[in-house]
Amino acid sequence: MKLSEIAAHIGARVWGEAGDVAINRVCGIEEAGTGDLTFVSNPKYAALAKSTKATAVIVAEDFPKIGATTLRTANPYYAFARALELFYQPPAYAPGIHPTAVIDPSARVGSHAHIGAYVVIGPNVKIGDRCTLLPHVVIYEGTSIGDHFFAHAHAVVREHCEIGNHVVLQNGAVVGGDGFGFAKESGAWYKIVQSGIAALEDNVEIQANACVDRASVGETRVAQGAKVDNLVQVGHGCRVGAHSMLCAQVGLAGSTELGKNVVLAGQAAVAGHCKIGDGVIITAQSATSHDVEAGRMISGSPAIDNKQWLRCVAAFNRLPEILKQLRSLKLPETQE
Amino acid sequence: MKLSEIAAHIGARVWGEAGDVAINRVCGIEEAGTGDLTFVSNPKYAALAKSTKATAVIVAEDFPKIGATTLRTANPYYAFARALELFYQPPAYAPGIHPTAVIDPSARVGSHAHIGAYVVIGPNVKIGDRCTLLPHVVIYEGTSIGDHFFAHAHAVVREHCEIGNHVVLQNGAVVGGDGFGFAKESGAWYKIVQSGIAALEDNVEIQANACVDRASVGETRVAQGAKVDNLVQVGHGCRVGAHSMLCAQVGLAGSTELGKNVVLAGQAAVAGHCKIGDGVIITAQSATSHDVEAGRMISGSPAIDNKQWLRCVAAFNRLPEILKQLRSLKLPETQE
Amino acid sequence: MKLSEIAAHIGARVWGEAGDVAINRVCGIEEAGTGDLTFVSNPKYAALAKSTKATAVIVAEDFPKIGATTLRTANPYYAFARALELFYQPPAYAPGIHPTAVIDPSARVGSHAHIGAYVVIGPNVKIGDRCTLLPHVVIYEGTSIGDHFFAHAHAVVREHCEIGNHVVLQNGAVVGGDGFGFAKESGAWYKIVQSGIAALEDNVEIQANACVDRASVGETRVAQGAKVDNLVQVGHGCRVGAHSMLCAQVGLAGSTELGKNVVLAGQAAVAGHCKIGDGVIITAQSATSHDVEAGRMISGSPAIDNKQWLRCVAAFNRLPEILKQLRSLKLPETQE
Repeated sequence: MKLSEIAAHIGARVWGEAGDVAINRVCGIEEAGTGDLTFVSNPKYAALAKSTKATAVIVAEDFPKIGATTLRTANPYYAFARALELFYQPPAYAPGIHPTAVIDPSARVGSHAHIGAYVVIGPNVKIGDRCTLLPHVVIYEGTSIGDHFFAHAHAVVREHCEIGNHVVLQNGAVVGGDGFGFAKESGAWYKIVQSGIAALEDNVEIQANACVDRASVGETRVAQGAKVDNLVQVGHGCRVGAHSMLCAQVGLAGSTELGKNVVLAGQAAVAGHCKIGDGVIITAQSATSHDVEAGRMISGSPAIDNKQWLRCVAAFNRLPEILKQLRSLKLPETQE
Repeated sequence: MKLSEIAAHIGARVWGEAGDVAINRVCGIEEAGTGDLTFVSNPKYAALAKSTKATAVIVAEDFPKIGATTLRTANPYYAFARALELFYQPPAYAPGIHPTAVIDPSARVGSHAHIGAYVVIGPNVKIGDRCTLLPHVVIYEGTSIGDHFFAHAHAVVREHCEIGNHVVLQNGAVVGGDGFGFAKESGAWYKIVQSGIAALEDNVEIQANACVDRASVGETRVAQGAKVDNLVQVGHGCRVGAHSMLCAQVGLAGSTELGKNVVLAGQAAVAGHCKIGDGVIITAQSATSHDVEAGRMISGSPAIDNKQWLRCVAAFNRLPEILKQLRSLKLPETQE
Repeated sequence: MKLSEIAAHIGARVWGEAGDVAINRVCGIEEAGTGDLTFVSNPKYAALAKSTKATAVIVAEDFPKIGATTLRTANPYYAFARALELFYQPPAYAPGIHPTAVIDPSARVGSHAHIGAYVVIGPNVKIGDRCTLLPHVVIYEGTSIGDHFFAHAHAVVREHCEIGNHVVLQNGAVVGGDGFGFAKESGAWYKIVQSGIAALEDNVEIQANACVDRASVGETRVAQGAKVDNLVQVGHGCRVGAHSMLCAQVGLAGSTELGKNVVLAGQAAVAGHCKIGDGVIITAQSATSHDVEAGRMISGSPAIDNKQWLRCVAAFNRLPEILKQLRSLKLPETQE
């Protein structure tokens, strides 16, 4: 494909003969060679742009001039995503219902559905148009699902849950499993019926083997556009705000609320009954059991302000030296 | 339903006309309005009880008087659980074996079983009475399962495992998967045959996508009444004591023993070959590689006594200031 | 079985009448009694060898003399693994294709395959000889799989992935699920097509519910002999070096490279775009967002040199005392 065609597709400009060059693939900057289009959005790779053998590089508008042809754009990562679509599309699944699918007679499935082998759809389920359910997906009774739903093999939606439009479930995702609710009585744990649901709004994606529990009462809600990575736990009664991002192995205990545009990096966690404001960033492996004001970036376990934490960590790494200094003061208490 | 009926069901008292009021639902205190019954067990929500618009509130015996009608009980959370059952029951599954279930002729399934679509039951499996196996559950050969077993879609029990009565598996739970046992030989990992089993005693619940590995030799055992949340890892050869609770994403490495009534909060972990005494609490994201005496509460990674840890964390957060003070002493070693 | 036969099998020596004794099982040293063979490889259990009632113990060549008969070998753990195989073999699955398996006509399956109930194999899949696919395994289109593949129930291999010989997938493992790639555009997350694949080389094992994501571009690769435990996350574009070991719940963010013989203990993590050298050990719950030189052992979050970390942790646990000492200095800044 000509570079000029790609440029037009992604809304970048390329001048003259530079646009006539053929691009064979889109790839990462470290692998890129002749005929390749690559990109720089992570500053960590900016230096590589100078020495890359790629034929062309998608860069930010203000990126320094380099040897390779550049496609300049306000959002190189997004432009890369758009360019990549010109070279690869995931498998398409033609409309049709596999004869082995077990669909309850009371269920309603919209038009242009692809229902794969061994899919099970329970009573009173409503599924919108242009949905794809790959093999072994199970939709429990009473669930309502919008249009353009895409569920990979072994994904599950439990009873009475509510799923918006354009929702994607990767393999093994569990939406609406029972919350972890038990009351201690006479020395044993008594299971609390999980009467609530889990709701996923439009454009939510839940990735592989992640779990969004149903609520004891009311609902667990993942608001529109939020993305939930592999092996994440969203506890019962939580609310995840719009366009928030939960990276792999993040955990939210019960009844916690995240605002909009919150980012929890890998393995981060929030205890139960907390309110995390809009735009909060919790860095990897960090955790809080307190409310967090909007816009803050916090780190550590328990988490504090990220900048203060960085200073504390630097000091922590010098603690043995600090102790040594204290000993040199020969205070009575420091004798050993 | 009349409040007096609910009160009678949960063993609380309500006097006179207050008992005649109609309750339409049971819900959380923040959502509760007219016609709702709610509860306070978490002290974090006690203040809300004063201003709630709920018609009635389940509270502890010694809870202060509030505007709303109160149902007083020794265990409000348990009472809430019991009240909730009057308003919601999860789907019931009528006895019957779906024609697509593949059940080995040598397997024995007890009375009143519900066996869903595409369930696979291997040779020499024994399953007790009144069991529910939802679609796509797979029971490997030689497994023994008690009465009232309930397995959600895609749960798996591996070969020769032993499951007690009233055991619940949520979606994607894996019981008896191979332990992570490899011996290094000639520079490569040699797989150790996992000859042991996993055993779940009565009233154990394993939640979604959690894994309880089989043992190399002997058994992995989860004792009666223990509850294991989503995405938990129980390594090979572990023993989880009765009524212990492993919250989401907890990890136990191999051959570790937990006593009774142990609580591991979210993402906590114990290294291999440790003994954790009865009643130990390990707070969220904490981990230990040592034995822990009964009754202790530990925190941090590596974990220490919780109270000491709280003091240490407070000091950690002041480390930059401490360093500054040290520098002000103008000790030779602190010059930079 | 005679002890002398076991000794011959594992390459150990036993003299005279000691070899005539009958061994009934192989088990852990704490459970071992008369008629049992056990082993000591973990130094934590060495003391138990003196008092064990086991009939024989596999030990290292230089292990002290004990009461029980010893089988001496350079690698006791490996010898134990080999001995165990004489007493237990996991279930064997006879060649044959279950009539309920849905295999696309364009797929090619090698000789001596065992294809279980409800297995789904997509278009243009190639599977080698002597493979075992247990019930509900799903192989997406265009995947290439070598010989001696063993996939437990509910394992999944996604489109176009490449699997070597002797690969094992435990239950619920997901190979090639979409990477967590989204570009922010106009305030929303735009999904980046995950055009790459996941590749598992020979002798890789992925355990239960672990996820190895496909790459945005290029590939995610787990090199030969690497072992990946339950609930591990391998992000898109990562490379895991040969014979590396990722223990349970480990997380690798995107585009990170691990060298050969790397060990990540339970719940450890590496941020994106890092290079971890050969032989690095990252201890449990530790994490790094930096490159790490070959051969290092690091700990903490963020991780530092293990030995320094141990000193820092010891000091951390004394921080309250340190603060007290500082206060005793009556510096102006320490007054409260």
